[in-house]
Amino acid sequence: MQKRLDTRDFPGNPFEDKITHDFAVIEQDPEVQVVVECIGGATIALDFVRRCLLAGKHVATSNKEMVATHGYELMSIAREKNVNFLFEASVGGGIPILRPLYFDLAGNEVQEVCGILNGTTNYILTKMILEGAAFDDVLKDAQAKGYAERNPAADVEGIDACRKVCILSALAFGFHVYPNQVFTEGITSISEADVAVANAGNMKLKLLGRTLRTPEGKVCAFVAPHFVPKTSQLANVEDVFNALLVRGNAIGEAMFYGPGAGKLPTASAVVGDVIDAVWHLDQRRPLNWADSKPEETADARDLVLPYVVRTGASQAEVEAAFGPAEPMGPDGYLLKPTSRRAIEASGLSLRAVRPVFE
Amino acid sequence: MQKRLDTRDFPGNPFEDKITHDFAVIEQDPEVQVVVECIGGATIALDFVRRCLLAGKHVATSNKEMVATHGYELMSIAREKNVNFLFEASVGGGIPILRPLYFDLAGNEVQEVCGILNGTTNYILTKMILEGAAFDDVLKDAQAKGYAERNPAADVEGIDACRKVCILSALAFGFHVYPNQVFTEGITSISEADVAVANAGNMKLKLLGRTLRTPEGKVCAFVAPHFVPKTSQLANVEDVFNALLVRGNAIGEAMFYGPGAGKLPTASAVVGDVIDAVWHLDQRRPLNWADSKPEETADARDLVLPYVVRTGASQAEVEAAFGPAEPMGPDGYLLKPTSRRAIEASGLSLRAVRPVFE
Repeated sequence: MQKRLDTRDFPGNPFEDKITHDFAVIEQDPEVQVVVECIGGATIALDFVRRCLLAGKHVATSNKEMVATHGYELMSIAREKNVNFLFEASVGGGIPILRPLYFDLAGNEVQEVCGILNGTTNYILTKMILEGAAFDDVLKDAQAKGYAERNPAADVEGIDACRKVCILSALAFGFHVYPNQVFTEGITSISEADVAVANAGNMKLKLLGRTLRTPEGKVCAFVAPHFVPKTSQLANVEDVFNALLVRGNAIGEAMFYGPGAGKLPTASAVVGDVIDAVWHLDQRRPLNWADSKPEETADARDLVLPYVVRTGASQAEVEAAFGPAEPMGPDGYLLKPTSRRAIEASGLSLRAVRPVFE
Repeated sequence: MQKRLDTRDFPGNPFEDKITHDFAVIEQDPEVQVVVECIGGATIALDFVRRCLLAGKHVATSNKEMVATHGYELMSIAREKNVNFLFEASVGGGIPILRPLYFDLAGNEVQEVCGILNGTTNYILTKMILEGAAFDDVLKDAQAKGYAERNPAADVEGIDACRKVCILSALAFGFHVYPNQVFTEGITSISEADVAVANAGNMKLKLLGRTLRTPEGKVCAFVAPHFVPKTSQLANVEDVFNALLVRGNAIGEAMFYGPGAGKLPTASAVVGDVIDAVWHLDQRRPLNWADSKPEETADARDLVLPYVVRTGASQAEVEAAFGPAEPMGPDGYLLKPTSRRAIEASGLSLRAVRPVFE
């Protein structure tokens, strides 16, 4: 039987008779084999999803917070109960990315998955870059258009992108990385001066979520505004669109682009999951990962990358601290590859520290 | 038993003992459950693939010619024998596109699949546009670099892209479209004047393969050089890269970008197929389509699109034939949407007829 759990009634709706207010009706109905969770958050939704899986039902969800924080536990229950736990819509909205990454690219040793994972912040940055507008003004415009929440913290502080990076880490590298293991910087500190420096370097400012294998073989996940060269495919991703770049030892680079949010794109991804579950009612999809491995997880502050710093210091002072540095725009310098930790330990007065995407 | 069919011997190779010169050894070995076909063409390869499927073996192939011309027959055998016939590498090289299109986006009514499907021609066009070089010179350079074959006809005349469009049509719309049903124009007629007109219109020339649902509900597949606005994601796809755009009623637009050819990217796609086949040895993937339906297939010459024409005629003559036309570059005019057939029937002396991608 098809059923819908809701706190509301829908008098006159053609599906009125499918509504129930009691989760147990769904939980205990043996005819319900596949459950779609669209509640959000990691409290009630987590309880219901856990109970659905324990009752031997397949679950499809778009809930990134729940998967990022409890994905390992839920996947373990799914494995034990031999059911599918699917969450394509939790990353990249309607863009098919999780199944392609895990199944289609399974022949690759993945080196990195990164991308523009949050449409709200990409819209704000696009406006700041194209119109030279200030962050606060663009945020107000985005809120008026419904692209940003009244409380925009989860988006602009990078929390949403961080959750998606956790999910990508699990699929790409085989163990859970929890949000508190992910260095996360949002876009609230980005100023028009950052935009000017990026322009001077023929780059664009983009909030990237990245999870990668370090040269030492550890997994490093982080979210930070990056300077992205305009020649990169990611630099051309504008407005509320998302894009994910996968780097693998066989494929080289592949990019997946599309709408990262919205009712219909999310539904497209969820329906894909439901179809997958229905075609695999008895033969579970071999989707799996281990719990977190702190000893195999690296802190992004130690990652050696090219950085651009903005500082009031002179070029001589910058070069005394970091070696040869290339001036970029009014108060910017492109440094030789180094770590955020080394930059912060330099004692130089810093206005911004931004990695460059290569 | 793992085996490899080859006409050659590989003395000293660690896999020397896996080589056989006799196809029947593979065909008759019940332990061989999955066969990878990398022969190419639609003669010997077709015979072997047909026999493998008939023998109840799963087949993975990168052979676009074979799938475009005999895909319906082979898929029918696979269905009858309850085995998988998979060919992810036949379109877009290493880019995961066929499985995402058929499975992940199954909740969509697909409106169009189109893209840059041939790396050789995209490399040539990129060079012509960026360096203002002539077609013949760039072709020689591409041949020297190994990007183009000594006999480049299959690439530059659009035949390779045509085959891929046939395969995309089957997956997107559910019935086979054969190469002879696909209007196909390559890039041999593109001149520096075309490039100049595109530049004047802030567009780029790209060879696009497209398959779409017409307003009348028919399927129309074609390959032609298009004027693509620089704001389109497809315009930024350069060099030997491929990209496929999927338009669906729920997803809106999604794009898949990556290496469209090459040994390792192709291997990445084939290995993905092999893994899929191995996980579905007993439960066949529900992949299927009907044979061609000429009555549901439209001729691209009748498709109403915005066109740019290059002509020696005056604006007054152009407007007398087509109504209001916007001059674009030295001898170009952007027409109101019309059909190629109407343009060709106008009697105007035409130097080029190029659709504009919207």
